[in-house]
Amino acid sequence: MTFDPCWLGGQRLPEVTIHASGALAQTIRGELRQTRRVPHDVEVALCTLGRLEETPLAPWVEQALPADGLGPEGFVVTRRGNQLVVAAEGGRGLLYGYFYLLRYFEWMTGDFTVVERPAVPVRMVAHWDNLDGSVERGYSGGSIFFRDGRVVQDLTRVRAYARLLASVGINAVVVNNGNVHAAETRLMSDHLPDLSRLAAVFREYGIATHLSVNFAAPLVLGELETADPLDERVIRWWSAAVSRVYDAVPDLGGFVVKADSENRPGPYSYGRHHADGANLLARALAPYKGTVYWRCFVYDCHQDWRDRSTDRARAAYDHFVPLDGLFDDNVVLQIKHGPLDFQPREPVSPLLGELQETPSAVELQVTQEYTGQQKDLCYLGPWWREILQFDTTGSGAPTTAERAAAVVGVANVGDDPNWTGHKLAQSNLYAYGRLAWDPAADPVSLLHEWAAATFAMDDRTRAELVEIMADSWRTYERYTAPMGVGFMVTPGTHYGPNVNGYEYSEWGTYHFADRYGIGVDRTVATGSGFTAQYPEPLAGGYENVHTCPDELLLFFHHVPYDHVLQNGRTVLQHIYDTHFQGYDEVEAMIARWKAIADRFDPATRENITARFDLQLRNAREWRDQVNTHFHRLSGTPDAAGRTIYR
Amino acid sequence: MTFDPCWLGGQRLPEVTIHASGALAQTIRGELRQTRRVPHDVEVALCTLGRLEETPLAPWVEQALPADGLGPEGFVVTRRGNQLVVAAEGGRGLLYGYFYLLRYFEWMTGDFTVVERPAVPVRMVAHWDNLDGSVERGYSGGSIFFRDGRVVQDLTRVRAYARLLASVGINAVVVNNGNVHAAETRLMSDHLPDLSRLAAVFREYGIATHLSVNFAAPLVLGELETADPLDERVIRWWSAAVSRVYDAVPDLGGFVVKADSENRPGPYSYGRHHADGANLLARALAPYKGTVYWRCFVYDCHQDWRDRSTDRARAAYDHFVPLDGLFDDNVVLQIKHGPLDFQPREPVSPLLGELQETPSAVELQVTQEYTGQQKDLCYLGPWWREILQFDTTGSGAPTTAERAAAVVGVANVGDDPNWTGHKLAQSNLYAYGRLAWDPAADPVSLLHEWAAATFAMDDRTRAELVEIMADSWRTYERYTAPMGVGFMVTPGTHYGPNVNGYEYSEWGTYHFADRYGIGVDRTVATGSGFTAQYPEPLAGGYENVHTCPDELLLFFHHVPYDHVLQNGRTVLQHIYDTHFQGYDEVEAMIARWKAIADRFDPATRENITARFDLQLRNAREWRDQVNTHFHRLSGTPDAAGRTIYR
Repeated sequence: MTFDPCWLGGQRLPEVTIHASGALAQTIRGELRQTRRVPHDVEVALCTLGRLEETPLAPWVEQALPADGLGPEGFVVTRRGNQLVVAAEGGRGLLYGYFYLLRYFEWMTGDFTVVERPAVPVRMVAHWDNLDGSVERGYSGGSIFFRDGRVVQDLTRVRAYARLLASVGINAVVVNNGNVHAAETRLMSDHLPDLSRLAAVFREYGIATHLSVNFAAPLVLGELETADPLDERVIRWWSAAVSRVYDAVPDLGGFVVKADSENRPGPYSYGRHHADGANLLARALAPYKGTVYWRCFVYDCHQDWRDRSTDRARAAYDHFVPLDGLFDDNVVLQIKHGPLDFQPREPVSPLLGELQETPSAVELQVTQEYTGQQKDLCYLGPWWREILQFDTTGSGAPTTAERAAAVVGVANVGDDPNWTGHKLAQSNLYAYGRLAWDPAADPVSLLHEWAAATFAMDDRTRAELVEIMADSWRTYERYTAPMGVGFMVTPGTHYGPNVNGYEYSEWGTYHFADRYGIGVDRTVATGSGFTAQYPEPLAGGYENVHTCPDELLLFFHHVPYDHVLQNGRTVLQHIYDTHFQGYDEVEAMIARWKAIADRFDPATRENITARFDLQLRNAREWRDQVNTHFHRLSGTPDAAGRTIYR
Repeated sequence: MTFDPCWLGGQRLPEVTIHASGALAQTIRGELRQTRRVPHDVEVALCTLGRLEETPLAPWVEQALPADGLGPEGFVVTRRGNQLVVAAEGGRGLLYGYFYLLRYFEWMTGDFTVVERPAVPVRMVAHWDNLDGSVERGYSGGSIFFRDGRVVQDLTRVRAYARLLASVGINAVVVNNGNVHAAETRLMSDHLPDLSRLAAVFREYGIATHLSVNFAAPLVLGELETADPLDERVIRWWSAAVSRVYDAVPDLGGFVVKADSENRPGPYSYGRHHADGANLLARALAPYKGTVYWRCFVYDCHQDWRDRSTDRARAAYDHFVPLDGLFDDNVVLQIKHGPLDFQPREPVSPLLGELQETPSAVELQVTQEYTGQQKDLCYLGPWWREILQFDTTGSGAPTTAERAAAVVGVANVGDDPNWTGHKLAQSNLYAYGRLAWDPAADPVSLLHEWAAATFAMDDRTRAELVEIMADSWRTYERYTAPMGVGFMVTPGTHYGPNVNGYEYSEWGTYHFADRYGIGVDRTVATGSGFTAQYPEPLAGGYENVHTCPDELLLFFHHVPYDHVLQNGRTVLQHIYDTHFQGYDEVEAMIARWKAIADRFDPATRENITARFDLQLRNAREWRDQVNTHFHRLSGTPDAAGRTIYR
């Protein structure tokens, strides 16, 4: 099966000399054999620092090195005249330096020195792939890892994927779905030889393999009658199981655990708390330097909509802040970026700013579950940058990324020839990796990088494509659920509108719209008190209906339709305006696309054109259903007299 | 696998002499061998008329015979002193007479003569069973006919089922789903030997087997590239195919066809009309006396909710009335009882009263797709009696049943040990058969019959059980969608509430509720004009908002919430009242059930108690979601101050 070269298709380099040894240097040598060469007067050398004395370039390169060192993943790129050197302390830094060179070489001019170090030590992609080859919330075909109950035989595509990930700085992968069913539980037993094969491919690109594990594995594998984390037999069971796993994959990164979450088993079944559960696994992993990524997506998924005292947004904080300090050192609490669930707009989870003694990971969703499912174009770079650069204290520092031990992105790839179903959705994987490395990167510049590496096109066409894509997240936000209220999606699939689809559900996902107003009162004064989970000045800013940002107003407040926003419009008119605008923007995107479409290869052209057709239909449905719904509720027509169906 | 004897469990008869020959007389002899005998002074004889001269009872029995004959299915039961004779013209009449005897013998006293003839010649049960063993809209386990892609080997249960059907007068069965997929299309080719086995079992009980066929069968079976009904090759194809089918099943009743309906293929694909399509099959079937049941469930299932000019309720009439007179004699148009789709309350379809030259079948749904899915108790006898006795002209006659050539009921049985999932749902199959035979039968009396035949219990317990069940349809109606507006169910499953679940769908199923009012305007004056499909005085009665029956008001009219019903309440208060009442009635049913539950066997007791638990939960969800929805829309509280959640 053939597949897109993605953004590693057309790059060219001059001759390169390598002064390095080790496995990753071997990988780089292999890379160089695949890279097209161009005649060039620049002499390029890739060196690890221990080898610098062997090259004549050492003195001026030494000057380029930062005083505080490069760290295991950092690198320096420096040029003087026709000499260009990429130097790193070891193989991983050199690998990232190589991909840096590949990405930017054609744009490099004059003498310069660049030092790069990743902002976050662990930059992970999490797959929700199942052993049967399906992908939960996957919109790009089946799994590239698994098929028919086992790891695929031919790992060619996995190797190509590992390259893609390494090229944007990803250094960790979780290969299986956090909902670990009976079959996947056996990844840590029967399938260990296959897991070993998979890990070997990722290892070539400096990527540590991680496994999602089932907290009830001792029961599911039929060996014990309990999974109680304080039971000696359970402790011994995990110790032995981990030992077997590390026999197969000596450098496994660790485990990811979704426990007591959406009907998955966990320590609560035994009257234990989550630190008991996490530490059980942490102690089994510690001898091997493995880490437990313990997900904080714990909430009551059998809520009664009649019960206004329970607020799902509070759940992660309420469950985990009291446990801060009780976790072993090799536990990382993995926290979804927002308090709910990957909606197109949410505030940053207060738990990300509140943990003092426990390392945290921020979890983003690259797969577009709630953001158009790779039918709709929705470039998420700007959104992720906002989240990663969010000032968690409201007073300047630290940001989410500065506090994070890891960034985790739920993968959007599958065995579709173009990897991501919608060709342009490749840009989300690209931007995710680049932002995890550098959260301050400009999302529009990242689009330029991605487009230049992906398509052979002139600068004007690229600029046009980037402009079509750049604001697509906000366009998507405009035609979907308004002002951070969330959901309003088709139950189950989560694609397309259903304003009341989750309004009376068990999932804690409500908008409370009636004939007078809409929104969720999460204030301390009259609501669920969620705002108090933030430090000041954030708490007060959200609490006050006049200072709460317009785009989050309905997440924090229940307001009448005639409430006037900071932008001067009423809530109702803003709903109408944004929904007309969102649809119009999709039409405009399509018109701009059509003007450049014939500059793309046929497969790309047809893929993108067909997806835009779907998006336009979806945007129209959202626009009309939302507008009609609120017109029926409010009885108030659009001030501009546009068509709202009865 | 063991299963319930259902209502053929405990009956007893005295010694019976048979004066008849033929296959069905053999069946009766077999029946008698299975029936428990009681010592009795009555001498019972079963005779076909040709054999009467052989018995000394002939003269007074002759007097009991009606002047116009008994017909092929009628029978007379007459008793003088200790002589009781059941006489019929042939085997089928005698079989029904035998089951009549079985049903009533213990209640027969004194001298009497009863003549019974069925009101409708074809009384059919339609299965929506698939070859893989699943049942579309089945709530009682898997198919009793099919498993793993073929007809089951052991037909013991099918034979028990044929007995059940014959005992209530059913004489026709459709064995497969009207949605005929590729696998089922092969029932008329590869699976003919199996179909023959199945038909043989039904034949023993006087039941004619029918097949649902795929209009595109010539394409699906890969033999032609068209299914155009006017194409000579297609005509020849069907002729040959039918010939093969009748080689296997010489007395096949005919075909049922769902064409151009819910994405099924049909004559519209070739620019032909439905008479072309139906006549194609009718002509192939005519040499074998087979009949085509052509379903009229044809409507636009990709409707745009914005389009208020299309009214799905109009569709069957609009499609088929213009074709009246164009169908061959062996075509029966099969018409759902209501204009939409088996909702708990709809008006009777005007098409049932309007066809002048084409025989029609009225289709009822015994399986409780929209009426509680055999989780909720909903005894449909009263509803079906209303439909079958409906005065189609509004001026005294004929009724639906009088006009009908056939009654069709979608089956509710599966391989659950108790046949119907909810044990009490057996009563619906029973009542369906009995009403198809005698549409004037009293539904409460039918419940008594069924309960007496099903349970060994004293008269007071039976009376209590019957009272619990008798009004359960109206209870279900009260807590679900109000006043005939329909739907408001969970999309896909059709169980449980979702007020707006189908409001913006493609299915033509809307309630148009806004802050001012609710309902579908189907009047001539201001709406879709659907009321004009009825003759006067029905048309005028429905057209006028003051004479339209309250229970159908929202089917025909869009009214403000403060519109005053004929019952003196406002529409809104009526919604609140019926929803509180419906829930309270379920609570009361359960209380009454608990008082008698220990008089039933454990399996029955546990089944019914568990189903009532589900029903109470469902009724509560309906009550609260509907009341909250309309409270949010209207802003008006309950006049009685009961709890409506915000």
